[in-house]
Amino acid sequence: MTEPKGEWKLIEWIRSRTRLDPQAFPIGPGDDMALAGLGGESQCLLTIDALLEGTHFDLARAAPRQVGYKALAVSLSDAAAMAAKPVCALAWAGLPETRDVQFAQDLCAGMAEAAEKFACPIVGGDITSWNQPLVTVGTALVARPAGIIPIRRSGAKPGDLLFATGDLGGSVLGRHLAFVPRVAEARQLAALVTIHAMIDLSDGLSTDLNHVARESGAGAEVMADAVPISDDARRLAQQDGRTPLDHALNDGEDFELLLAVEPVDARDLLKQNPLATARLTHIGHITEGSGVTLVAADGSKSPLPPGGYEHFK
Amino acid sequence: MTEPKGEWKLIEWIRSRTRLDPQAFPIGPGDDMALAGLGGESQCLLTIDALLEGTHFDLARAAPRQVGYKALAVSLSDAAAMAAKPVCALAWAGLPETRDVQFAQDLCAGMAEAAEKFACPIVGGDITSWNQPLVTVGTALVARPAGIIPIRRSGAKPGDLLFATGDLGGSVLGRHLAFVPRVAEARQLAALVTIHAMIDLSDGLSTDLNHVARESGAGAEVMADAVPISDDARRLAQQDGRTPLDHALNDGEDFELLLAVEPVDARDLLKQNPLATARLTHIGHITEGSGVTLVAADGSKSPLPPGGYEHFK
Repeated sequence: MTEPKGEWKLIEWIRSRTRLDPQAFPIGPGDDMALAGLGGESQCLLTIDALLEGTHFDLARAAPRQVGYKALAVSLSDAAAMAAKPVCALAWAGLPETRDVQFAQDLCAGMAEAAEKFACPIVGGDITSWNQPLVTVGTALVARPAGIIPIRRSGAKPGDLLFATGDLGGSVLGRHLAFVPRVAEARQLAALVTIHAMIDLSDGLSTDLNHVARESGAGAEVMADAVPISDDARRLAQQDGRTPLDHALNDGEDFELLLAVEPVDARDLLKQNPLATARLTHIGHITEGSGVTLVAADGSKSPLPPGGYEHFK
Repeated sequence: MTEPKGEWKLIEWIRSRTRLDPQAFPIGPGDDMALAGLGGESQCLLTIDALLEGTHFDLARAAPRQVGYKALAVSLSDAAAMAAKPVCALAWAGLPETRDVQFAQDLCAGMAEAAEKFACPIVGGDITSWNQPLVTVGTALVARPAGIIPIRRSGAKPGDLLFATGDLGGSVLGRHLAFVPRVAEARQLAALVTIHAMIDLSDGLSTDLNHVARESGAGAEVMADAVPISDDARRLAQQDGRTPLDHALNDGEDFELLLAVEPVDARDLLKQNPLATARLTHIGHITEGSGVTLVAADGSKSPLPPGGYEHFK
């Protein structure tokens, strides 16, 4: 989800103290999902997410049904980032006592809509009312590799080409409540080519690409004039004076995929867009070194630090 | 967790709309954990829980480390209720921006303490800060049957004897932050005898036994003078004028086990307490019919409706 100042340092602290048996838990904290062994050959992928009123949604602008949909969709997007197949989900909600049963039912209906669309039934959960005005919703999702080795953030190699699905920026205008997690697209791409690293764009391209570069021990360059800018980013730019590119680079909650593909495979992707449901754009490449660099149309380079911001703040 | 008015009706509504393939998901909403197939013979058990500041803990009386411990312990208690073996957990926290890094680290340390004690590592999670004064913490837990068929709430049969572990009532005085989930005890008992139904006492004996009776399509009788009353229940009774028995029957968050055992096995349990770490008390039995009845020392009977209450209200 959106990443407040200091969160990454705290996660680094947690990771530094976490001693996982790599046989039992091949992927631990810091990736889109964890990978856990269940005895024998059996494995599952796991993620947990939560939405907080005022941070991830605003009930003045979002219907409870949309909040329910988003709650499950953000976890489904984590499964997409690993090219995993969703199995089932759990849901939890903390609701103000002042909210009525209809509100809770609408929230559940939104979750059920996402569950049905992605064949990921909600198999359990919990609802608590509290004497606070705020709504919080949590989900946990179980997925399985189902024939595709889970794709991590850390496998990008210098020379890899970077691709993004869809158009970026300005999701706060409404897309952040109604996006389609790229579950099918991720599995299609992973079946076609060797994906070295993948992440879903939840924190914004600049932030998420910095995650991939850091985790891969590499750098990255983004070609400014190649970034696919959404109409929402352009509309938002007219309102706030920031550039459309700034929005596309730094806005959070696009929930598109960012992937690093080895050059031989990238040529195939460049020749023809293999996805019927989303544009696939070549936006840059992985380099030696570290950090992310933005390359302007005139060739000039500038650092592109993590710039994701939080909604409603 | 604690069950506000109307929650059960809402869960019934959700269950009535949930169509799960019973082959893939043999246990769905309404039990302590869900049971999900992962392809082939592979299965896992799943639960999600959340703690809300002011409802499940009060930071004037609880250290962040205790809150972290409790957050994972409530999920571990769900695993105990199914006699399942915990595999790993995910954790999530929503923290006020005003809380410092030390607070977050203490919270994590409390979770790590529970994780280590029960060999249930935290393999992933998420931390979000929000501009609200309240702390919320969520956990999801994965367990596996590991040789014991998961024990449901719904299998109790007329004639079964009811047992409870530990002493009940008054956990709000502190035990609700430091209880030991009965994971080991549940698996010991399940290995010894045939347990028809089991639940962890999170909502209070009266409420949770009503769950077991309803789910099993049966009634139940509790012998008032057999209920194991905790010292906390007696202390609280002196403060608030309610009886110690009332506290033992209706207070939430004991996180002890309630189990229904067939008579032939119950005799073995009555002869000798097989648990080194917790008292096991015969408190009543399952009957034909429906509803829960309290039998006083003089033999008089009265209904025992769900009486669980919410903390801090």
